[in-house]
Amino acid sequence: MHPPAEPARGAGRHRVVIIGCGFGGLFAARALKKAPVDVTVIDRTNHHLFQPLLYQVATGILSEGEIAPAIRDILRRHRNVSVHMGEVTDIDLGARVVTSVHREEERRTPYDSLIVSPGTHTSYFGHDEFARWATGLKSIDDALEARGRIIEAFELAESEPDAARRGALLTFAVIGAGPTGVEMAGQIIELSRRALRHNFRTIDPAQARVLLFDGGPSVLSFFGERLGKRTERDLGRLGVEVHLGTTVTGMDRDSLTVRRPDGESETFPAHTKLWAAGVAGSPLARPLAVAAGVELDRLGRVPVADDCTLPGHPEVFVIGDLMALADLPGMAEVAMQSGRHAARLIVGRLQGRPDTPLRYRDLGSMATISRFRGIAKIGRLQLSGFLGWVLWLVVHITFLTGFKNRVSALARWTISFLGRARSERTITVQQVVAREAVAAHRLGKDASGRGEPG
Amino acid sequence: MHPPAEPARGAGRHRVVIIGCGFGGLFAARALKKAPVDVTVIDRTNHHLFQPLLYQVATGILSEGEIAPAIRDILRRHRNVSVHMGEVTDIDLGARVVTSVHREEERRTPYDSLIVSPGTHTSYFGHDEFARWATGLKSIDDALEARGRIIEAFELAESEPDAARRGALLTFAVIGAGPTGVEMAGQIIELSRRALRHNFRTIDPAQARVLLFDGGPSVLSFFGERLGKRTERDLGRLGVEVHLGTTVTGMDRDSLTVRRPDGESETFPAHTKLWAAGVAGSPLARPLAVAAGVELDRLGRVPVADDCTLPGHPEVFVIGDLMALADLPGMAEVAMQSGRHAARLIVGRLQGRPDTPLRYRDLGSMATISRFRGIAKIGRLQLSGFLGWVLWLVVHITFLTGFKNRVSALARWTISFLGRARSERTITVQQVVAREAVAAHRLGKDASGRGEPG
Repeated sequence: MHPPAEPARGAGRHRVVIIGCGFGGLFAARALKKAPVDVTVIDRTNHHLFQPLLYQVATGILSEGEIAPAIRDILRRHRNVSVHMGEVTDIDLGARVVTSVHREEERRTPYDSLIVSPGTHTSYFGHDEFARWATGLKSIDDALEARGRIIEAFELAESEPDAARRGALLTFAVIGAGPTGVEMAGQIIELSRRALRHNFRTIDPAQARVLLFDGGPSVLSFFGERLGKRTERDLGRLGVEVHLGTTVTGMDRDSLTVRRPDGESETFPAHTKLWAAGVAGSPLARPLAVAAGVELDRLGRVPVADDCTLPGHPEVFVIGDLMALADLPGMAEVAMQSGRHAARLIVGRLQGRPDTPLRYRDLGSMATISRFRGIAKIGRLQLSGFLGWVLWLVVHITFLTGFKNRVSALARWTISFLGRARSERTITVQQVVAREAVAAHRLGKDASGRGEPG
Repeated sequence: MHPPAEPARGAGRHRVVIIGCGFGGLFAARALKKAPVDVTVIDRTNHHLFQPLLYQVATGILSEGEIAPAIRDILRRHRNVSVHMGEVTDIDLGARVVTSVHREEERRTPYDSLIVSPGTHTSYFGHDEFARWATGLKSIDDALEARGRIIEAFELAESEPDAARRGALLTFAVIGAGPTGVEMAGQIIELSRRALRHNFRTIDPAQARVLLFDGGPSVLSFFGERLGKRTERDLGRLGVEVHLGTTVTGMDRDSLTVRRPDGESETFPAHTKLWAAGVAGSPLARPLAVAAGVELDRLGRVPVADDCTLPGHPEVFVIGDLMALADLPGMAEVAMQSGRHAARLIVGRLQGRPDTPLRYRDLGSMATISRFRGIAKIGRLQLSGFLGWVLWLVVHITFLTGFKNRVSALARWTISFLGRARSERTITVQQVVAREAVAAHRLGKDASGRGEPG
């Protein structure tokens, strides 16, 4: 093997290591394109994930490649960037070395500047046993598992002779009424009412119930009361049963138990459970905070200085979902801007410019409820209905990574929204095998301890 | 749940059960569209698989939905067809009942006519331990696993400090030089030489070696000597190392051992192994043959009468890859025509027409070697090179199931063949977890017995 010449990477140059290639990490790497630095990106997976459209993979509209392009392909023209797959197991702030592991092979990567952006993962709020029944919605694997579970629930219902169990199989519970939960609920309705039409003989998929639960007093609380109320009404009209002020207390194969606002317990028959409720910061947060002598905030995020650096460690930036700064929310736009900010500071320091604080510009937020219906909040402007949806469409097509993915997502949306088909409905066998193995692993059980998940 | 009215299905009508919805089962179900019969299709998966393009999912060109549309969606306008997921565990020829199991729920389906078309699965020729290292190429799961292994091999190579292991990681062994093996080998070359260009910093993916092994004396033996030789030369020019008359005798994580034509043993460093060599008939074949008092042929297929019926059981048709009839090969065209033939006979009998033998019309065979290069054999006409490729393109687009899938496959091919990108390169974590679980299961080991597959 003769490694090719690497004109853009050089010995003795400033070394930047980026942990995690979500929106934060990707925008940092891109912003360093022409900088005289050597960048190493380390990610657990081989892909960047366009998280805002994950629910569309989970409901069969898009394929995984369309929202999860290979990181090294996105960054192929960035000759100063090197990409390595690996799970970061240690950050040595003193020696300035990141340790990562891939398939039991350990890798140690020294840095001069470090950008920490590993993001978050699903949290079941202390109920890890829920993982077996309720699929998270944070990774491509989650989305494929959710897709398999949703599509298979209809398959099982078609063959089920018992009416009560058929009812449970045709009930979908979405926990968490943020954008992902609202979009999931809306899409399951569309799937059952439109896409699956004429597909079944013993069941009517349009009879499927979709339940949406949230512990708070409104849906999409982040968008304010007016848009929240509007969304709740729209969801109700579509057929989603919204249960607010409600906490999930238990679940098993075919049911879900909640504590209602009046304090009473209620059990719903519901085979398929989708968990869009909670996230927890990366496991890297705690050791990083301990090493820096700071305390995590209540969401498990690392408090940073106003320039996104770790207190006492100006060479370390904590950005995106893991960053606790001035009440900024965990959303794509914050990750992108903090990533770009970190890159600018690193370049500025090399040129002798002073550090500046992150100036976050709120470009607005948006969500879709179903096709042709969306909401958007841009400063004081609030849009809903068709206009909100058009804006959502334009923004998502613009931001989706890669020209080809934009074209193919547009084509898929035409098929799904104007037509009625879902192109991606494949249930894979391995997904089912893995579901059990992963659930058993999470619970610390022997993977051979059989159980019946489906 | 109130099941919808079912005008097209009626009590007392002739009941047809179809086991397996590959080309044979699908074409039988379609041919029964207007017949006064009730059809039940039972398949282990929820999708029909367009097997001839499976290698394109394995190499990141197409998404799984494009070649594996949901069976019930393809057949949604066939109001007399009901579809059920399930693995057939028993066929009671006396009572005329098929037993199937899905998620431990048993289902018994009575029939008046039965069409058996479960197809084949990968056979490691008695070396089940190869399953752990060599991915089969028969199912969507196989293709996704192969895709993960191929893409990840490059990822591992990029991070590997040891030159010898890097060489093994960049060597891909394809076992079996039939159409699937030849097409896989050609596409791995294209992937390494074109699609991955500019993606890596420490390795040059174009240095990847692709080895193609076959026990026979030529590649694509089915196409005859002239096209076989031509293909062998084309493969060689592309960079594929072809080893004929060679039998695989052993493998482990990073190597493959073969017996050469001269009887000597040779070991190749090769991390990624793809098994396109052998198939075995469905496990249903043997009990069916025993019950009917016939003997399986050497390929494990069921001998049938010239009208595709099981000897002594005119109500049972064995079609497609499981049918042993007049040396017809196991290929899509045979499955389609035998499926249509069975459907015609069932309808003909209801109308009092006499049975007729299957008259197979050879419409030709074709394969691609790489973009712009294909071969085709239609009667005495033999095409190769660009013309062969164009014919391949036209035929595959025509036969691909579903108008939307044709459009989107064409779009993907434009991206992959005129451009250089591969749209689907996502490695999923579950695929990796499942790989281990499945391998352990195959070997009858405890799934928790860890090992290092990657």
